[in-house]
Amino acid sequence: MDLIERLQWRHAVKAMNGKRVPEEKIDRILEAARLAPSGNGLQPIEIFVITNQEIKDKIKKAAINQIQVSTCSHLLVFAAWNRFTAENINETFDFMKNVDGRDTPEDYKQHVIKSYTERNAKEQSAMADNQAFIALGIAVAAAAFETLDSCPMTGFSPDEVDKILNLKEKDLHSVALLPIGYRDSEQDWNEKLPKARKPKEKFITKIN
Amino acid sequence: MDLIERLQWRHAVKAMNGKRVPEEKIDRILEAARLAPSGNGLQPIEIFVITNQEIKDKIKKAAINQIQVSTCSHLLVFAAWNRFTAENINETFDFMKNVDGRDTPEDYKQHVIKSYTERNAKEQSAMADNQAFIALGIAVAAAAFETLDSCPMTGFSPDEVDKILNLKEKDLHSVALLPIGYRDSEQDWNEKLPKARKPKEKFITKIN
Repeated sequence: MDLIERLQWRHAVKAMNGKRVPEEKIDRILEAARLAPSGNGLQPIEIFVITNQEIKDKIKKAAINQIQVSTCSHLLVFAAWNRFTAENINETFDFMKNVDGRDTPEDYKQHVIKSYTERNAKEQSAMADNQAFIALGIAVAAAAFETLDSCPMTGFSPDEVDKILNLKEKDLHSVALLPIGYRDSEQDWNEKLPKARKPKEKFITKIN
Repeated sequence: MDLIERLQWRHAVKAMNGKRVPEEKIDRILEAARLAPSGNGLQPIEIFVITNQEIKDKIKKAAINQIQVSTCSHLLVFAAWNRFTAENINETFDFMKNVDGRDTPEDYKQHVIKSYTERNAKEQSAMADNQAFIALGIAVAAAAFETLDSCPMTGFSPDEVDKILNLKEKDLHSVALLPIGYRDSEQDWNEKLPKARKPKEKFITKIN
């Protein structure tokens, strides 16, 4: 399939019909997100996949009552680390060593740890968020490859969603929502609108 | 083509051979990035595409001398708005009206403007960054679809790159680099390593 054709096909679907998506399609989207690149390979993110209707309804209330959250099949919540620590960074280095036998030099490890932990709490959280958005972009494309509708969203109260999913105790915070399912064409006002994207000349500058 | 297969194929290429990539392949990657979703459809980002060797060399120096920056064919610099203003948000609403005739209600416009401009400078800049990372994720996938090598990077001095590209005067700042080209297998130490990604059980939590 062609990526551009898939990206042209998709749009932010504002209402879904509640029909259940086969689990293997969701698993392929999650696999694409897992394969997303991340800074220093740390993957400071986790994804929560919610089919439980009660929890979807609660999160909908924390998301300005946007109905795609409760009418989707699977609600993906992208969460990120609250902070980088020597512990969670070293855990990644240890894991890499297990996978490929690479022995990251101790001075490089210390350099990486310092480069994250010397920043303040907000900066660390934002750096983890960035990695969540890379994976979100890839997951949006992956959903389109499954001919599934989705709607990437940041219009919600992270604090409320963190409480609903007990993210604080995992030292995580919610970053973005991605409801996945099938559109309800009658209620999805966005389906009728043509895709509006800035023209190339306002988006791209070539310096030769 | 299969997205997951493409994501498994790609890796962060640490050295390239300088061979020039055909322009139409780069244009398809840029088109994928342009089609990326963004919060409220504002697309608060721009992409600078650099083939000029002198500028690539300067940016390499601002990027801890990482050689993929100077040995790539095309260096993409993802830049984001420094701030959201009533002016740049209204410009987007006006543009959307031109595209699809939609008449966004004035109170909704004011609500969107307030939701961005009431935040402090750092928060606004971070919100724009998030949108750049969505597009970066999609561009990384798009490069893999063209069987081109790339390396998403944030390890550089944004201030120095902003100066090199005069971004400050456009009220933009650099967010990420994406060198694109063909790998130099002899120097690309990362090619030999298997892909290291957290196992599913540490990345995904299903709540049924």
